[in-house]
Amino acid sequence: MFGKVKRVLIGRPMKSAELEAEKLGKLKALAILSSDALSSVAYGTEQILLVLMVAGFAALWYSVPISIAVLGLLVILVISYRQTIFAYPTGGGAYIVAKDNLGQASSLIAGGSLLVDYVLTVAVSSSAGTDAITSAFPILHDHRVLIALVMIVFLTLMNLRGVTESASVLAIPIYLFVISIFFLIISGVIKYMTGGIEAAAPEFGTTVSNVSLFLLLKAFSSGCSALTGVEAVSNAIPNFRQPAERNAAATLLMMGLILGGMFIGITLLAYWYGIRPSGTETVISQIARMTFGSGIIYYIIQGVTALILFLAANTAYSAFPLLAFMLAKDKYMPHMFMVRGDRLGFSNGIIFLSLASALLVIVFHGETDSLIPLYAVGVFIPFTLSQLGMMVRWIKLKPANWVLKLVINTIGMLTTLSITLIFIFTKFAQVWIIFIFLPIVVYVFYKIYIHYQNTAEQLRIDITIDKPQIKGNTIIIPVAGITRVVMNTISYAKTLSPNVVAVYVGFDDEAIRKMEDKWEQWDPGVRLIVLKSRYRSILGPLRRFIDTVEWKTSATDHITILIPQFVTKHWWESILHNQTSLLMRAYLINYKDVVVATVPYHLKS
Amino acid sequence: MFGKVKRVLIGRPMKSAELEAEKLGKLKALAILSSDALSSVAYGTEQILLVLMVAGFAALWYSVPISIAVLGLLVILVISYRQTIFAYPTGGGAYIVAKDNLGQASSLIAGGSLLVDYVLTVAVSSSAGTDAITSAFPILHDHRVLIALVMIVFLTLMNLRGVTESASVLAIPIYLFVISIFFLIISGVIKYMTGGIEAAAPEFGTTVSNVSLFLLLKAFSSGCSALTGVEAVSNAIPNFRQPAERNAAATLLMMGLILGGMFIGITLLAYWYGIRPSGTETVISQIARMTFGSGIIYYIIQGVTALILFLAANTAYSAFPLLAFMLAKDKYMPHMFMVRGDRLGFSNGIIFLSLASALLVIVFHGETDSLIPLYAVGVFIPFTLSQLGMMVRWIKLKPANWVLKLVINTIGMLTTLSITLIFIFTKFAQVWIIFIFLPIVVYVFYKIYIHYQNTAEQLRIDITIDKPQIKGNTIIIPVAGITRVVMNTISYAKTLSPNVVAVYVGFDDEAIRKMEDKWEQWDPGVRLIVLKSRYRSILGPLRRFIDTVEWKTSATDHITILIPQFVTKHWWESILHNQTSLLMRAYLINYKDVVVATVPYHLKS
Repeated sequence: MFGKVKRVLIGRPMKSAELEAEKLGKLKALAILSSDALSSVAYGTEQILLVLMVAGFAALWYSVPISIAVLGLLVILVISYRQTIFAYPTGGGAYIVAKDNLGQASSLIAGGSLLVDYVLTVAVSSSAGTDAITSAFPILHDHRVLIALVMIVFLTLMNLRGVTESASVLAIPIYLFVISIFFLIISGVIKYMTGGIEAAAPEFGTTVSNVSLFLLLKAFSSGCSALTGVEAVSNAIPNFRQPAERNAAATLLMMGLILGGMFIGITLLAYWYGIRPSGTETVISQIARMTFGSGIIYYIIQGVTALILFLAANTAYSAFPLLAFMLAKDKYMPHMFMVRGDRLGFSNGIIFLSLASALLVIVFHGETDSLIPLYAVGVFIPFTLSQLGMMVRWIKLKPANWVLKLVINTIGMLTTLSITLIFIFTKFAQVWIIFIFLPIVVYVFYKIYIHYQNTAEQLRIDITIDKPQIKGNTIIIPVAGITRVVMNTISYAKTLSPNVVAVYVGFDDEAIRKMEDKWEQWDPGVRLIVLKSRYRSILGPLRRFIDTVEWKTSATDHITILIPQFVTKHWWESILHNQTSLLMRAYLINYKDVVVATVPYHLKS
Repeated sequence: MFGKVKRVLIGRPMKSAELEAEKLGKLKALAILSSDALSSVAYGTEQILLVLMVAGFAALWYSVPISIAVLGLLVILVISYRQTIFAYPTGGGAYIVAKDNLGQASSLIAGGSLLVDYVLTVAVSSSAGTDAITSAFPILHDHRVLIALVMIVFLTLMNLRGVTESASVLAIPIYLFVISIFFLIISGVIKYMTGGIEAAAPEFGTTVSNVSLFLLLKAFSSGCSALTGVEAVSNAIPNFRQPAERNAAATLLMMGLILGGMFIGITLLAYWYGIRPSGTETVISQIARMTFGSGIIYYIIQGVTALILFLAANTAYSAFPLLAFMLAKDKYMPHMFMVRGDRLGFSNGIIFLSLASALLVIVFHGETDSLIPLYAVGVFIPFTLSQLGMMVRWIKLKPANWVLKLVINTIGMLTTLSITLIFIFTKFAQVWIIFIFLPIVVYVFYKIYIHYQNTAEQLRIDITIDKPQIKGNTIIIPVAGITRVVMNTISYAKTLSPNVVAVYVGFDDEAIRKMEDKWEQWDPGVRLIVLKSRYRSILGPLRRFIDTVEWKTSATDHITILIPQFVTKHWWESILHNQTSLLMRAYLINYKDVVVATVPYHLKS
C-alpha cells in the first residue's frame, strides 16, 4: 500500500551504478548553479528601500550609492572566490576550507551555519516566490503560507525522484529570467528617458535630516542579501567539464556580471520611478506594472520570477543533503544522512530540509522580510570563515604570488567580517536567534561525534584474540494458555536446548489451578512454572522470574526468552489482540542481557 | 519518566483483591445514580422553548402542556423500568435485556446505541456545564470548547485514578443541586405571586397562527431530552444493599418524583417570567438572575448546576467501560477493553470515551443545542429495545400477573417507539448521522466477533493428540562488519545449532573483498556468505537468501534469524544508529515462517 504510493510519487528504485554525474559545460553550469544568486535580485533592492523608507520617501535616493557599495562587495567576493576555486579543485565549500585550514571548531561553525542557511534558502525563496505570485494575484494574499508549503512539498517530491535527470531542463527558466529582467530594465530605462513616467523620484543628493549612519549601514547590510548564493560555484567544481577550474572561474565571473547588472538596473529604475516598498506588492512587480501595464508581459515577468525563486530553493536541495552527508561521514551527524534512497538522492537530508523549512515558513507566516536578515547573516558567517581559511592556507603553503593572494583574501575576510558585524550591530533584534541556535548546533555535532567514537571503541575487537565462546542455554517460554502457537513454540524450543521451562502468569487461584491441570494432561515434555500476579501485570512477575534465572545460571548459560506469537492475516486485525509481547520484547531488549526471540504462527484467515 | 508522571496523575497501582464494591444504601444510591437524569433539567425546558420560539414569543405558553406530556412519559418510563428492576436483579441494561430476549442483532443495536450515547452524555454534559459557567461569566464565552475539554481531561484523570473512593463525596453536590433548584423554584413562585416580576408572560391558551402540529411534536421530542438518564438505576442493582431490588425500585421512584418536580417547576417559572431562550445565557441562569439578582445566591446556583452536569458526565465514565467490558467479553469488541488498569478501572474504555467525546465537543464547537437531538435519539432506541425485550420475556415466561406486566411494557414500548419516530420525523436533519453510524458500529461488532471465532478455531489444539515435534535448526546471522556485537551473536548461535551461517550484504566489490579477507583472518568457526546489492537495500538480497534457505531446508529444519544488535545506554542515542534491524524484524515476523531473535549487546556508556 505505502509502497505503491511511494512508487507513483517517487518512481522506481535505481541501481547504484546509475550514479554517473553528468559533467557540465559553462553555460549549463551557469544555469544550474546561479539560480540562488541571480534570484536574489527579486528582493535585494526591496530590502534596501524598506530600511530607507523609515526615514521617509526623500531618503530613498540613498539606495543608489548603497547599491554601488554592494556592487563593490560583489567584486571583492568574486575575486576571492576565484582563488578558492583554483585552490580546491575538488570542491571548496566553507566547511571543507575551514576544516582544512582552521580546525574542527571553525569547520563546525561553518558547517552548522551553512546547514541553517540552506534551510533559510528554501524558506526565503519559497516565500519570495509566493510574493511574486500574490503581487500578480492579490486575491491569493491570504493563502501565502499554503502556497509556500505547496512549493516545498513539490520540491521535496521532485528531489526524492532525483534531480539529475532534469538538469538541462532547469537551464530554460534561468535564461528566461535573465532575459526578462534585462528586457524590463532596458524598456524601463527607455520609458524613463522618453518621459513616460509621471511619478516623481526623490531628489538625488538632498540631505535628509533623520538619515543616520546607523540607518545607512542597516540599509547596506540589507542590500547584501542580494549577494547570497554566489558561493555555489565554488562547491561544485567536480561537476564541471575539463578544464574544470578554468570553466568554474569563468562561470563565476559571468554570474557576477549578470547579477551586478540586474541588481543596479533594478535599483536605478526603482529610484527613477519613485517606487515605495509595499506590503502587498513587490518592487519588481511595481516596476513591471508601471513599464508594461498589467498585460501579458507583466504576468510573464512575475511568473518567471516566481519560477526562478522556486529553482533557487531547489539549489538548497542539492547542497543541504551533500553537506549533511559530509558531516555524517565525519561523524558529526547521524549516519542516516549517509544513506542513499531508492532514487539515489540522500532522502533523509531532503526530508529533513523540507520539514525544517516548512516549519520556518509556518512560524514566520511566510513573511520574506522577517526571514531575509537571518538568511543573510547565516551566509556571511561561512563567507568570513572561508576567507580566513584561505588566508591561513596561503601563509602555510606559501605558493607563488602568495602575498597577493593573501592580500586579496584578507580584504575579502575583513569585508565579510565587517558586514557580519554590521548585521549584528544594526539588526540585533532580528538576528540574535542565530547566535543562540548556532552554538546549540555545534554542541550537538560534538556530542554526536563523541558518541560515535565511544561506540566504535566499545564494539572494536582484536580479531587475533577475541573469538566466539560456547556456553549453555536456558530457554523460558511465557505462555498464556495451551494453543497451537504455544505448541509450535515448544517444538522449536526443544530443538535448541534441553533446558526449557514454560512460565504462566495467573491472576487468580482458579485460573492457575485449571492451567496446571490442563498442562499435566497435555504433557508436552516441558516443565510449567506458575506465577501469581496480584497487580494484573504480566511483565512484573515475569521480570522477577527472569532475574532469578539470570542470577542462577548466567555464568554458565545464555538465557533466551521465546515469545509465542500468532500473526494475523491483515495488519489491522492485530489491534484486536493483546500486544503484551511487543511491550515485553521492548523491555527485555533494552534492560536485560537476554536474547528475545519471537516464534510466529501465521493465521491462515 | 513516563512512569513517574503517571504515578502523580493516576496514583499507585492497586491489587486485584482491593476490588470490593462498596454496597449502596437508598440515599447514597440516589445521589450517585441520578446525576445524569436530574442534570437534564438544566437543559430540558430550554430545548422546548428553543423550538417554540421559532413561532414567536406568544407560542411559548405551549411549553406548559408539552412539559405535562413529558411528565406523563416520565411516569410510564418509571413504571416500566420498575418491572425491569425486579426481572433483572443482577442488572438489566438494555444490552442485557435485548441479548436475553431478542437475540444478537437487537442486542448489538442496543449496545451500539448505548455506547454512542455514553459518548454523547459526556459531550452534552460538559458542553451544558460550560453553558452554566459562561452564563455567569460571559467573558468566557469564546473559550467554550477549551473549558469543556478541560472538564473532560479532569474526568479522565479522576476516573483513571478510580472513582469508588469518591462515591460518598459525590452525594454532596447532588443534594446541593436538588436543594438549590427547589429553593429557586419556591423563591421564584413566591416572587411571582407577590408580583415581584415585571416581565409579561405570553397569554395562556391563545392560538398562535404559525404553530403547527409538527412544531409541537418537535418541541415535545426536544422536551424528552429531560428524561435522559432515568435508566441508570436499572443497570446498577448489584451495587445496592439488600433487599437490592426493593431498594432500587424505591430509588427509581424517588428520582422520578424529584426530576418531575424540578422539571415542571422550571418550566412554569420560565413561562411566568416570560423568558426567551438566548444563545449566551441559559434559561436557568435567567430565572435565577431575575429571582435573586446577580448576587451570591445566583452564583451558587450556577456553580452547583455546572458541578451536577460535570457529575452527569461522570456517570458515563462508569457505564461506558462496563458496557465495553461486557461487549468485549462477548467478543464484539477488542479484548483490550477487558483489561483493568493499575487502579482497577477499565483504562482503555475510559480513554476511548474521553477521546471520542472530546472529538465531538471539538466538531460541534461545544454547542449543546446541536448535540442534544443526537443524544436523545440515541437514548430512546435502547429504551424501546429494552421494553420490547421485556414484552417478549413476559410472553415467554408467563409469570404471575404477566398480562398486566405485558400491558405496562407494551405501553412503554409504544411510547418510546413513537418518540423515536417523532425524532426522526421532526429532526431528521439533525439526527440522520446516527442512522449511518449505528449500522457501521453493529457491522464492526459482527466482524470482530467473526475474527475472534476464527482465530480461536485456528489456535485450538486437541491436547490428547497434538504434541510438540522436534526438528533441526538452521541459523542465519546477518552481519555488517566484525564487531563485539557480531562476536557475541556468533557465540550464542554456536550454542544452539551446528548449522550456522553469517550473511554479509555488500554494496560494492571492494567492500566485499575486504570483508571476506578479514573474516578469513578472524576465523570464528562460522561460514560467511556474501551477497551483493545493486539497489543499496539490505533487506532485498537477505530476503531472497532466506527464501532459498527456506526452500532447501524447511522440511527438516526450523530457520532462525539472529539479529546482532547493540543497545545504546540512552534511548535517544538510538536515533544515531541504523534501525535496519527493526525493519528486518517487522518484515520477517509478518511475512515469513522464521523465528527472529535479537541478540542484544548493551553499551556501557
